[in-house]
Amino acid sequence: MRQIEGGVTAAKGFEAAAAAAQIKYKDRTDMALVYSEAPCRAAGTFTSNLVKAACVKWDMEIVRSGKDVHAVIVNSGIANACTGEEGFRCCEETADAAAAALAIPADSVLVGSTGVIGMQLPMDRIRAGVSALAKAKGATAEHGTAAAQAIMTTDTVKKEIAVTFELGGKEVTLGGMTKGSGMIHPNMCTMLGFLTTDAAISKEMLQKALSADVQDTYNMISVDGDTSTNDTLILLANGLAGNPEITEENEDYRTFLRALNYVNTYLARKMAGDGEGATALLTAKVIRAQTKEQAVTLSRSIITSNLTKAMIFGHDANFGRVLCAMGYSGASFDPDRVDLTFESAAGSIRIAENGRGIPFDEEEAKKILSEEEVIIVADIKMGDAQATAWGCDLTYDYVKINADYRS
Amino acid sequence: MRQIEGGVTAAKGFEAAAAAAQIKYKDRTDMALVYSEAPCRAAGTFTSNLVKAACVKWDMEIVRSGKDVHAVIVNSGIANACTGEEGFRCCEETADAAAAALAIPADSVLVGSTGVIGMQLPMDRIRAGVSALAKAKGATAEHGTAAAQAIMTTDTVKKEIAVTFELGGKEVTLGGMTKGSGMIHPNMCTMLGFLTTDAAISKEMLQKALSADVQDTYNMISVDGDTSTNDTLILLANGLAGNPEITEENEDYRTFLRALNYVNTYLARKMAGDGEGATALLTAKVIRAQTKEQAVTLSRSIITSNLTKAMIFGHDANFGRVLCAMGYSGASFDPDRVDLTFESAAGSIRIAENGRGIPFDEEEAKKILSEEEVIIVADIKMGDAQATAWGCDLTYDYVKINADYRS
Repeated sequence: MRQIEGGVTAAKGFEAAAAAAQIKYKDRTDMALVYSEAPCRAAGTFTSNLVKAACVKWDMEIVRSGKDVHAVIVNSGIANACTGEEGFRCCEETADAAAAALAIPADSVLVGSTGVIGMQLPMDRIRAGVSALAKAKGATAEHGTAAAQAIMTTDTVKKEIAVTFELGGKEVTLGGMTKGSGMIHPNMCTMLGFLTTDAAISKEMLQKALSADVQDTYNMISVDGDTSTNDTLILLANGLAGNPEITEENEDYRTFLRALNYVNTYLARKMAGDGEGATALLTAKVIRAQTKEQAVTLSRSIITSNLTKAMIFGHDANFGRVLCAMGYSGASFDPDRVDLTFESAAGSIRIAENGRGIPFDEEEAKKILSEEEVIIVADIKMGDAQATAWGCDLTYDYVKINADYRS
Repeated sequence: MRQIEGGVTAAKGFEAAAAAAQIKYKDRTDMALVYSEAPCRAAGTFTSNLVKAACVKWDMEIVRSGKDVHAVIVNSGIANACTGEEGFRCCEETADAAAAALAIPADSVLVGSTGVIGMQLPMDRIRAGVSALAKAKGATAEHGTAAAQAIMTTDTVKKEIAVTFELGGKEVTLGGMTKGSGMIHPNMCTMLGFLTTDAAISKEMLQKALSADVQDTYNMISVDGDTSTNDTLILLANGLAGNPEITEENEDYRTFLRALNYVNTYLARKMAGDGEGATALLTAKVIRAQTKEQAVTLSRSIITSNLTKAMIFGHDANFGRVLCAMGYSGASFDPDRVDLTFESAAGSIRIAENGRGIPFDEEEAKKILSEEEVIIVADIKMGDAQATAWGCDLTYDYVKINADYRS
C-alpha cells in the first residue's frame, strides 16, 4: 500500500466539484459534488442520534435499498436537521435537480448537510449550486481538493487522503475526504466523510468493511462529546479497477480492509486534531487491558474529559485528572496498578506509577505537553488488549466559536 | 418550614471554625471544623468514581460502621486522592490530632479534602490547623459562615443555608454548607457537603433520607461532566431538638425529608450556578415524560452538553443544540413531538414546536437568555413524569481556570 496525492478523485472514474452557492457563507465555496459515471455500490454508517437530519434519513433509505449510486451533493451551510417534512422534501428536490443536471436517476443521488440546525434550505440557491457543480466537475486532484475545501465549516484545514494497493494483480485506489471540527463525538460513524474506490467489491462486503472499521477509527474520536444529528460516512465503489470482485472475507478483503483502516485513521486523527479551537491532538492509549471493550471505554473517557482537555491546553502534567477520568468511565480496573506516561515528539515522561504520582521534571513535562500531538499512555496491567482514542484540547477558541455560532 | 440565617451551626449543639493553615493557599482560611459535643448519627453518600480519595475511604468506613461521630475536619488545598497508603495514614493522623485537641475518639472524626489530586498532605500544617480549629470553634452563625468560606476552592460565593420546622411539637433545625465549582458531575452524591441537624432520627432513617434525596438534588447537577474522586456528602444528627425519634417512614419522616430536600435543592442550585467560570445557572426541565428515568436522562443530557452550555454563554437561542443533546442521550422519545421553551426572569419564549423551529423575536430571546438563571423547558408529550437538572454555561474562564490549575 502506498499513499498518493489526492482524495475523492484519486480512484478511477470519480469526479468532483465545488461551488459557491451562498447557503450561509459569502466569498467561499459551500457546496460539493462527488460523481461517478459508472454506477457505484454504496456503504454508509450514520449517526446514532435519535434526532436525525433529513439528509441522513434520505441517505439511509438509498444505502439500505442497495440501489446503485452515482452522485453525492453536499452543502456546508445548513444542517437540514429538525426541519420536518419540508426538510425531507428539500432532499428530494436536491436529488431531482442533480438527476436532471447529471442525467442520472434521482434515487442514485445521496445528499449531505452540515451547519446550523433548525433552518430550512434555500432551495433556489441549492438548485443553482447543483447546476454549477455539474458544469464544474472534473477528475483532477484539484477538483477533489476543491470539494474537500467546500465541505469545511469551522475546520481550519482540509482533510483528504488517497492510497493505492494491489488486488488480484490490479492496482486499486481508495481516497476520501472528511469534515469535522465541532459537535464531534461519533457514535456509529462520524460527521461528514466521503470515500471513493475503484475496487470491485460486493455491496455486502463493502458495508461489512466500513461498519467494522469505523469502530476503531471515527468512533474513537471526540471533540466535545456532542453526537451530531448529521453524522454520515459514505463509501462508494465503482469497480473500475477491474480486480476480481471481493465477495467473501478472503485475503483481498483483508488487504482492502487494511487500506480502508489507513485512510480512516488518517482522516479521523485529522478531525480530532482540528477540533474546534484545538491547538493539539490528544491521543489516549490504554494498554495491557483485559478486554478491548475495557480499553475502549477507558481511552474514550480520557479524551472526552473537559478537565483533561483543558490540562493539555495548559501544558500541565496533572496525572490525577487522567486517573479521575478513567475512574468514572464505568470500566472496572485497579487504580492502584495504573502507570501513566506522557509522550510526544519532544520525548516521553513517566508521571505516575501504581496509581500514585512520582517525582518528575516539570520543565521537561511542559516541553512534552507543548507539542502538536500529546499521547497519554495508561498501562493498566491486566491483560494484552489495547485501544487508542483521539481528541483535542479545550481552549478559549472552542468557547468563542460556540458561544455565538449562528450569527 | 421556615428558612433562617446560618448554616452548619444553626442546629442546636453544633459548633464550627475556620483556620488559615497554608495547605495550598496564602492569606485565606483553608481548613474547617464542624463539631458536636453530643454524639451524632452520621449518614453519608460518596463518589461512585472507582478512584476514591483516601478521605472518602476513611469516611465510608466510619459511616458504614454506624459509630457515633463528633467532628469533621476539612481542608480545601489538597484532595488526598491517588496518594496510596500514605494518604490513608494522613487521614488517621488528622483524626488522631482532632481526637487529642477535642477530647473525642479518633474514630468519631470524619475528614474531607478537596484540591489538587496526587499530592501528599503536609501533616505538620494539618496538625497545626487542627489545633487552631479546636481553639477557634464556636456556635454562632459567624462560625458557620467562616467554615463555609474555608472549604471554598474556585467557588466565588459561599454556599450555606438553614431551615427550621416542627416535629412532634418540637422545633427542629437543619443546616448545611457545600463547595462545588469544578470537577462537578456527582454520581451518588456531590463534591463536599456537610449538613447538620438536631433532629432525633435513627441512623437507618437518616441514611435512607439522604440517599433518596441526593437523586433529585446533587445527582441532578453538573458543571463539567467530570465525576470527582472526592465527592462527599455528610449529614450529622445529634438529636438535641428532643423530638420523638424518627424510626420509620411516618409523617415526621416526610416532614424531615421535605426540609432536607429544600436545603439540598438550594445548595445544589448554588453549586451549579457557581460552576467554574460560570455566568449563568442553566436549568433544564423535561416535562410530560413517560417515566422519571427518561426525564432524568434527557434533562441531564441537556445541561451537560458543551454546545448547549456555550450557547447559554453566548445568549444564543439555538434550539437545535438542545434537541441534539436530547437525541444522543440514550433515552427514547419522539423528536417530532418536542416543544421547547426558554424562560427566565425576563420572560418566556417558545422556540420550537413538534421538533421544528418556529419564528421568534431574536431580541426578546437574547434578553431572556441574558439573565442569571435560564430555564429550558422541553415538553415531550408522552406522560406525566418530569425531572429538573441544573448546570451552568461554558465560558472562557472555565478554560482559564482549568488550563493551569496546579500552579
